[in-house]
Amino acid sequence: MAKKICIIGCGAIGSLYAAHLAQVAEVYAFVRRPAHAHALNEQGLRVTGKHNFTARLRATTDPAELPECHLGIVCSKATQTEEAVAPVGHLFNRGALLSAQNGLGCEEILARHSQGQILRGTTFMSGTRHSDTVVQYELDTATWLGPFEPSSTPFSTVSDTADLIVAAGLKAVALEDARPAQWSKLIFNASVNGVSALTGLPHCPAFAEEARFGDLGRLLHDLIEEGKQVAKAVGITLHEDPWEMNKIGAETNHPTSMLYDVQHHYETEVEFLGGAIAREAERVGASAPLHTALYRLIKGKEASWRRSEAGDSPSGSTAIPKVTSAHDPSA
Amino acid sequence: MAKKICIIGCGAIGSLYAAHLAQVAEVYAFVRRPAHAHALNEQGLRVTGKHNFTARLRATTDPAELPECHLGIVCSKATQTEEAVAPVGHLFNRGALLSAQNGLGCEEILARHSQGQILRGTTFMSGTRHSDTVVQYELDTATWLGPFEPSSTPFSTVSDTADLIVAAGLKAVALEDARPAQWSKLIFNASVNGVSALTGLPHCPAFAEEARFGDLGRLLHDLIEEGKQVAKAVGITLHEDPWEMNKIGAETNHPTSMLYDVQHHYETEVEFLGGAIAREAERVGASAPLHTALYRLIKGKEASWRRSEAGDSPSGSTAIPKVTSAHDPSA
Repeated sequence: MAKKICIIGCGAIGSLYAAHLAQVAEVYAFVRRPAHAHALNEQGLRVTGKHNFTARLRATTDPAELPECHLGIVCSKATQTEEAVAPVGHLFNRGALLSAQNGLGCEEILARHSQGQILRGTTFMSGTRHSDTVVQYELDTATWLGPFEPSSTPFSTVSDTADLIVAAGLKAVALEDARPAQWSKLIFNASVNGVSALTGLPHCPAFAEEARFGDLGRLLHDLIEEGKQVAKAVGITLHEDPWEMNKIGAETNHPTSMLYDVQHHYETEVEFLGGAIAREAERVGASAPLHTALYRLIKGKEASWRRSEAGDSPSGSTAIPKVTSAHDPSA
Repeated sequence: MAKKICIIGCGAIGSLYAAHLAQVAEVYAFVRRPAHAHALNEQGLRVTGKHNFTARLRATTDPAELPECHLGIVCSKATQTEEAVAPVGHLFNRGALLSAQNGLGCEEILARHSQGQILRGTTFMSGTRHSDTVVQYELDTATWLGPFEPSSTPFSTVSDTADLIVAAGLKAVALEDARPAQWSKLIFNASVNGVSALTGLPHCPAFAEEARFGDLGRLLHDLIEEGKQVAKAVGITLHEDPWEMNKIGAETNHPTSMLYDVQHHYETEVEFLGGAIAREAERVGASAPLHTALYRLIKGKEASWRRSEAGDSPSGSTAIPKVTSAHDPSA
């Protein structure tokens, strides 16, 4: 009998897991929009890019239509973990639940909503979602996964899950400890997304330029170095160097996910990225002034949309009154 | 014979000087736009708010139409100092030239373009410019002025200039050393404008809130504290506490000048504000990680407009391609 797997959240990453795993398992997709579920059920899910095929799966917005599953993979935005997992967490009470999300703190939310075995995951694969039913597979890099420590998940569950992902045609590595991989990506993501969100720049060559005093690469370097020091204070030996990841990414001119959120006035993942680094530093008595500053700036930016949408005051993309008052002591 | 005074740049502050000084002197205004000069010559310059009167003055965009003057007051944006002063600096070779601009570094530019006596000024008055010919006088606080140290300006020139400004109905204080006042406003301006430009928030109550870890007031506090440490390292004892200035200003919900620049994609004054603090710290071997970080972010933001205008890539207010690629290792 085929294993039952539920993908929770079908953005780019969720779609890649769903389509591939549907080749070797019975795949369900739990999504938010009825039109999304309907399109997936009608048309299937097409993968382009590195792989080319169309998968059949069962999508729904209704938890009551989902069976008990062997495995769930949570692929929602970190900010939507609670609402995505709360209605379905019980379906994995006798199975496993893997977070393939950004940042720190998602596994804790999964553990609150399921008695299943929780897996800590970090994926380095990438894709572009062209529509509800078409996803392009871009970087075919691995998902790293390990046990979520407090849930005493046995390693056999980790390796079985990795084997299943590999059997589906994707890359996965089972680890005794997935935190070094998670922190490498965390530091990279917090630094690059934070700078991108605040400057409006995609991940572009300026992120690695360090020749002059004002160059942005110097800030990235400082942010990444600070992140490494926090990781060290927390007791993590990094899996790979986030600065090297930044140098490679800076060549892509990729619009970052947090820039996308900022431009659309969506709540960002900053609490799970830079905010998590800032709080971890606080927790262990380390210093993270730069990540803390960027975290507060991005929270301020989110607050500016709320002011703007409340019609409270000029901010964001709203034009401000056509007056000039330079030299004003109230700035 | 009435003294001849030329106001260089007639924004809100320049207009306030021009109109008031025209009551006690022969005032010329050197402006950039022919329509601006024409309107001032035709209609005069009306002051509303704290004072109410209309002044007559002579405005021009042509340096050849300006006489040799006793005094020049430079009121352009700091970023436009060079272009504003270069064509007219020689007219003050036997007089005095006062910078009433934001930040650090304008006096040095004045000294390169005039052999006159250079005055270091910081104004705390404020106004709102309603049109080319109407300016509202708001905060009637003083202009603080002193000698620009390298130009060996005698104190008598400082006090004569302050007397003239006071005779015109504005407030002014002559100081042996104007740097403590200039640095107080510099630290305030760099901190408040920087945070405002990056968050999109006007100077609002959040700038003074410090209760929770993510609160923006904590960042403002840290920025101001860092600025004070740099001032101390440079040898400056501040004139007033920028944190107190911030608390008062935070009640105003005033859109800051740098936010205005950011929203209109104008070059900001960051080189003369946070950039100046960062460079001064570097010069004296002090540490200014937060001002340096904000400086680099704002330079990055300026770079994003150039990309955007060159059609190079998505950024700023330009919509980015409708794709989602969260979890992407290139962020």
